[in-house]
Amino acid sequence: MTSDLDIARAATLRPMPEIAAKLDIPEDALIPYGRDKAKLEAEFVAGLDGRETGKLILVTAISPTPAGEGKTTTTVGLGDGLSRIGKRAAICLREASLGPNFGMKGGAAGGGYAQVVPMESMNLHFTGDFHAVGAAHNLLAAMIDNHIHWGNALEIDARRITWRRVLDMNDRALRDIVVSLGGVSNGFPRQTGFDITVASEVMACLCLSRDLTDLQERLGRIVVAYRRDRSPVTCAEIGADGAMAVLLKEALQPNLVQTLEGTPAFVHGGPFANIAHGCNSVIATQSALKLADYVVTEAGFGADLGAEKFFDIKCRKAGLTPSAAVVVATVRALKMNGGVAKADLGAEDVAAVEAGCANLNRHIANMKKFGVPVVVAINRFTADTEDEIAAVRAAAEAQGVEAVLCTHWSEGGAGAEALAEKIVALTERPSQFAPLYPDDMPLIEKIETIATRIYHASDVYADQKILNQLRDWEAAGYGNLPICVAKTQYSFSADPTLRGAPSGHTLPIREVRLSAGAGFVVVICGEIMTMPGLPRHPAAETIGLDADCRITGLF
Amino acid sequence: MTSDLDIARAATLRPMPEIAAKLDIPEDALIPYGRDKAKLEAEFVAGLDGRETGKLILVTAISPTPAGEGKTTTTVGLGDGLSRIGKRAAICLREASLGPNFGMKGGAAGGGYAQVVPMESMNLHFTGDFHAVGAAHNLLAAMIDNHIHWGNALEIDARRITWRRVLDMNDRALRDIVVSLGGVSNGFPRQTGFDITVASEVMACLCLSRDLTDLQERLGRIVVAYRRDRSPVTCAEIGADGAMAVLLKEALQPNLVQTLEGTPAFVHGGPFANIAHGCNSVIATQSALKLADYVVTEAGFGADLGAEKFFDIKCRKAGLTPSAAVVVATVRALKMNGGVAKADLGAEDVAAVEAGCANLNRHIANMKKFGVPVVVAINRFTADTEDEIAAVRAAAEAQGVEAVLCTHWSEGGAGAEALAEKIVALTERPSQFAPLYPDDMPLIEKIETIATRIYHASDVYADQKILNQLRDWEAAGYGNLPICVAKTQYSFSADPTLRGAPSGHTLPIREVRLSAGAGFVVVICGEIMTMPGLPRHPAAETIGLDADCRITGLF
Repeated sequence: MTSDLDIARAATLRPMPEIAAKLDIPEDALIPYGRDKAKLEAEFVAGLDGRETGKLILVTAISPTPAGEGKTTTTVGLGDGLSRIGKRAAICLREASLGPNFGMKGGAAGGGYAQVVPMESMNLHFTGDFHAVGAAHNLLAAMIDNHIHWGNALEIDARRITWRRVLDMNDRALRDIVVSLGGVSNGFPRQTGFDITVASEVMACLCLSRDLTDLQERLGRIVVAYRRDRSPVTCAEIGADGAMAVLLKEALQPNLVQTLEGTPAFVHGGPFANIAHGCNSVIATQSALKLADYVVTEAGFGADLGAEKFFDIKCRKAGLTPSAAVVVATVRALKMNGGVAKADLGAEDVAAVEAGCANLNRHIANMKKFGVPVVVAINRFTADTEDEIAAVRAAAEAQGVEAVLCTHWSEGGAGAEALAEKIVALTERPSQFAPLYPDDMPLIEKIETIATRIYHASDVYADQKILNQLRDWEAAGYGNLPICVAKTQYSFSADPTLRGAPSGHTLPIREVRLSAGAGFVVVICGEIMTMPGLPRHPAAETIGLDADCRITGLF
Repeated sequence: MTSDLDIARAATLRPMPEIAAKLDIPEDALIPYGRDKAKLEAEFVAGLDGRETGKLILVTAISPTPAGEGKTTTTVGLGDGLSRIGKRAAICLREASLGPNFGMKGGAAGGGYAQVVPMESMNLHFTGDFHAVGAAHNLLAAMIDNHIHWGNALEIDARRITWRRVLDMNDRALRDIVVSLGGVSNGFPRQTGFDITVASEVMACLCLSRDLTDLQERLGRIVVAYRRDRSPVTCAEIGADGAMAVLLKEALQPNLVQTLEGTPAFVHGGPFANIAHGCNSVIATQSALKLADYVVTEAGFGADLGAEKFFDIKCRKAGLTPSAAVVVATVRALKMNGGVAKADLGAEDVAAVEAGCANLNRHIANMKKFGVPVVVAINRFTADTEDEIAAVRAAAEAQGVEAVLCTHWSEGGAGAEALAEKIVALTERPSQFAPLYPDDMPLIEKIETIATRIYHASDVYADQKILNQLRDWEAAGYGNLPICVAKTQYSFSADPTLRGAPSGHTLPIREVRLSAGAGFVVVICGEIMTMPGLPRHPAAETIGLDADCRITGLF
């Protein structure tokens, strides 16, 4: 079998000016990064402002399972499919985090014949954006401890510093550390830790900013610590926002690459999908919408988390109007949602598919609550039987939604032409998009709205301390922020073992965090790991160079 | 007065293919990074192997003072001067570290009309090389703690892990830390710390490697820890060398930029000048020598440290033969070496210049010990008087060396034409270069040789523990490595207040460290800071963006 890497390496990439020309981007608006990557110059991006806006299509999915759904593959395939039927299309994806690639093999952007290239660079340093985010984040951290070291004029309570440090590396040893040991010249010892770079609020700020000025303002609003009287200390008070914006100036410019079939691909930004909103940058999406007639993008995890945050955080705040949503499903993943174990996925099991469709149906119904037209993409695997596929189609049709069979993994854009045609038809009428809750709803009611309407929970559990914290933030002027729920992606509930479409559960809030710069309140329900560890035998042990200095073991 | 930044911003940069063409580098050997930076493709670099080698000129200096000497400025000026008199010239410099720019204002590569551009990028992320070094370094660190977490099959003594972590940030809070707190899932708590990225042995390995294979072998040899029986544990045993080489694959390709006058400038690598050898990469220097007839490069600190390490580590190990050395001096710095305080530098003081020339004379005599022809470059300041300059000329001439007055700071390459002519004349005869000591001399004798012959110390003090350590390393096969002394740059002695040309002092060895991957033994004499801190009012507080989003406050 031909591997993703073999396919990617066999591809002949088109010169970047040729890719740009498909969207009428002049060559002098491109800043090259290597031969197969470019950034769009900030001035060019700013100049797009007055233009008409294309149609925005969100690719989301049923609740994920270890069987795999293929959201990125479908995003790429749909983009290529739209190009093939003569539409001016672009796709928007997140950048990959470097660190995790050295833990588990993986990484690739898409798969089979629906990939974005250059694959190796995208899974390593790419255009350096994440390193810039890390540098900006850690500059702020250094300035906080430095401020305290030199006299603490802001009266920061060193026990209440919420700003940690970041590295783009899976390093469990850094989760929980004590810093500033070693005596007077090294500052005041205190407990803190590192998160992985994609968990940085700087990353979320970068991804929600309209431009560099907006970015600096967001950075300035980040709450980094509290005083003894519980009043917040911001990044702007530390004086780090300007220097951080300088460090992020290049990183904010959207990256342009290409699919295997030459569709322009904006790959930019990569916030965590749990404690952040999990979508590519607003600036890339906005630019793509001004340049293309159809822009296909994806959100992290299943639709309960990814699509909800895409709509309620990104679209709400950036003023985006999504024209359609694609819910990706596979027969295999539906079977797992229907109770089949991974080892037993080989055998036909129409009943399990039907049972698993409860999960699909719930996601379809949820999308409709945002006023967005829906289509289901069945990402076909070779072993899927006709009867299993028919079961998925029937389930979708019962809700008035079409399920389109897609074979982009094995056939590229040609395998997603039918989906592309459906999207064109579906987006002819203007979207009735509206967020799920209004800005001015109290924070706890926003949480309850998401829990009951999207997760089908019967109630939300939050202790008094959490309720008080939410009220304090409302009093401090943060009450109009949207909610960013961090919970397991494997279930509508907070219990990862409850597959399918559970109802009547309680959503237990463990902790709430304020991301005042990014502009949301994070509601943590369950264990959320913000610094992964390496497995017993990390992929790094087998990653290396062959005799021709080509990279091996990374994919 | 026009600032360095104003001059750099007013410059019209030539397209990179035009710069490359000056050295007959074909456009397809260039990998663009932004518009004004490029890397030379590894295949092209490898193909240079059989070519003839140009002449290598080292720019070094008298013992540095707060008055400033202008080594980088002279390197740039001489390169431009050689270009102006019709020679095919290139310069080789180190990359700048990002972190320190947020502490103290500064950074610029050169100054006045003798600068390398693009200045802003060179003082920020440049081509991402240092971020790659940091990622490779920290991957190894994560894998060490991960190895212990999963059972410690290599029987590493967790108290004897010498491999720390790195960040390109001035962050004193990270100097001395305890990691792996928080319980079973986070590993075994232990004390460690972070250094700044330029202090990483990975950086030294990158800078001393011939090619990617050599780099991976060096990385594999790095000693990261010891067992209870004191036997070393290497990076290769951890299994990180392959993945680290993958992370450094792009970074190893030399960077090409340009001077204000369009002379090709290779700016690549940047190891610390104290615990490492302080020169740009071997691969950049070798490439430049195959492409240009004259290659001007510089080494860190004064000639006692920088030039000695350049000759005894870089040239010895890379098989380079330097054709000449330029010792840069300023009247101001000579006055300070002659006992004048910085505040009193404004007044003419010929006697102080003459006294300070003891320092210059010592450095000149030292260069001759390596068999390298010497010229003195007087980097002129406006306030220098004719009599003061005459005193410098006389001192040099008394040693049979010419001192050439240079005005490249205010006039660019035209101000260094006389120096360039002198260099051409001086390098007509083949160099008699030889390192100071043979490979097979015992380590302690190598140290004594440097101390007595270069520093004019009367003896070396090392306690029994250090002597035993050196003998252990000799027994383990590391006896043939050269020595890398880390001591103050302000004096020939280990006492920074002893300016001029002190003799008869004792060189006290505080600690010795093995850099088995880079290939040298570090001898630490005095306090060496490998993680700087931020000052009370860091430059970061005033670094920002103006209304046109241009960077302010960085220079």
